[in-house]
Amino acid sequence: MTRPNLQIACDHKDLPSALADIKSIGEIVDILEVGTILLLQEGKQPVECFRALYPEKTIVADPKCADAGSTVAKNCKEAGANWMTCICSATIPTMKAAAKEIDEIQVELYGDWTYVQAQQWLDAGISQVIYHQSRDALLAGETWGEKDLKKVQKLVDMGFRVSITGGLNIDTLKLFEGVDVYTFITGRGITQTESPKQAALDFKNEIKRIWG
Amino acid sequence: MTRPNLQIACDHKDLPSALADIKSIGEIVDILEVGTILLLQEGKQPVECFRALYPEKTIVADPKCADAGSTVAKNCKEAGANWMTCICSATIPTMKAAAKEIDEIQVELYGDWTYVQAQQWLDAGISQVIYHQSRDALLAGETWGEKDLKKVQKLVDMGFRVSITGGLNIDTLKLFEGVDVYTFITGRGITQTESPKQAALDFKNEIKRIWG
Repeated sequence: MTRPNLQIACDHKDLPSALADIKSIGEIVDILEVGTILLLQEGKQPVECFRALYPEKTIVADPKCADAGSTVAKNCKEAGANWMTCICSATIPTMKAAAKEIDEIQVELYGDWTYVQAQQWLDAGISQVIYHQSRDALLAGETWGEKDLKKVQKLVDMGFRVSITGGLNIDTLKLFEGVDVYTFITGRGITQTESPKQAALDFKNEIKRIWG
Repeated sequence: MTRPNLQIACDHKDLPSALADIKSIGEIVDILEVGTILLLQEGKQPVECFRALYPEKTIVADPKCADAGSTVAKNCKEAGANWMTCICSATIPTMKAAAKEIDEIQVELYGDWTYVQAQQWLDAGISQVIYHQSRDALLAGETWGEKDLKKVQKLVDMGFRVSITGGLNIDTLKLFEGVDVYTFITGRGITQTESPKQAALDFKNEIKRIWG
């Protein structure tokens, strides 16, 4: 079992506040994500700035691409992203078109996806998925539980590298002990703490403690 | 049967080229859309510019929102949009959260949506859907046909206002004769012609000829 990555998701309302938040943690985390909200507010510029500031880091753009896969992926790549997300309801041609233009595609699991679809993504050469508790589900009172762990394990068994996201904090990590998680994604779990730098270090240490 | 609206979708790579294209047609079309590609490239600025240029027009932002419905809708509204799109795989809580923050939500029909879901959208007070031939499906050789018309008619019968998009041109419109289409959405069918202004007028005239 390899040690999971730590990914910071920036869903800020504007570029300056995102830059202020990643300044102290950019070197600590493994992966920097320009989240959907920030992309929709500021366009490609945050991707370009993250790339300029952290030339060696993996950068993810999170447009949750549903169509025009080729154009969207090409634009994300050009701005400096290594990876890009597609929504699970995108068609296979859209995902394939996107996958041709950028290093890797990650499929975002929302709503009623099926394992039949998941196998089609693998068959199309896409082996990263992102397993969510959606922000709106969390607001509606849902939490991480056994049903989630089973789904994640099944995806791992199928051959996916699985990222986990949605309301994660340091205490949530141990729920996943024994599961071969590829990446933990958090945003406000780090940025909305008193010391984001300390929170990022605590996340890293807890991951190291559990996964070695 | 009411006369369908004409909506221009701007999926440009940058704001200046979008502005150049809508300059001659902004007053002719009924609805101006900042497409997903343009949003991801330029953020909210195109919405703000369209609103400044056309204070009286209906403006749609097309983020294909999948999560964080409240925040995304609030941001779109603040930038000047009247309507915003959600992807069909978004959860009902996401759609409801979005619907609270902006005049109207339109559900984008991609992939394997069902009429059971569609009824849930209606029950949540969302009565606009966008029926697509996706760009990637069109690239793969699919075209408009009887199967599409039947689905559109069923959605109309359920009580939806249905927008139609994907590879439309003036010759395609007559396929929908007798169907109570709410809006035809086109992008390159207007902007990539020799005279976008003439193409927009031709679309309007053909809609008038068929729907009165």
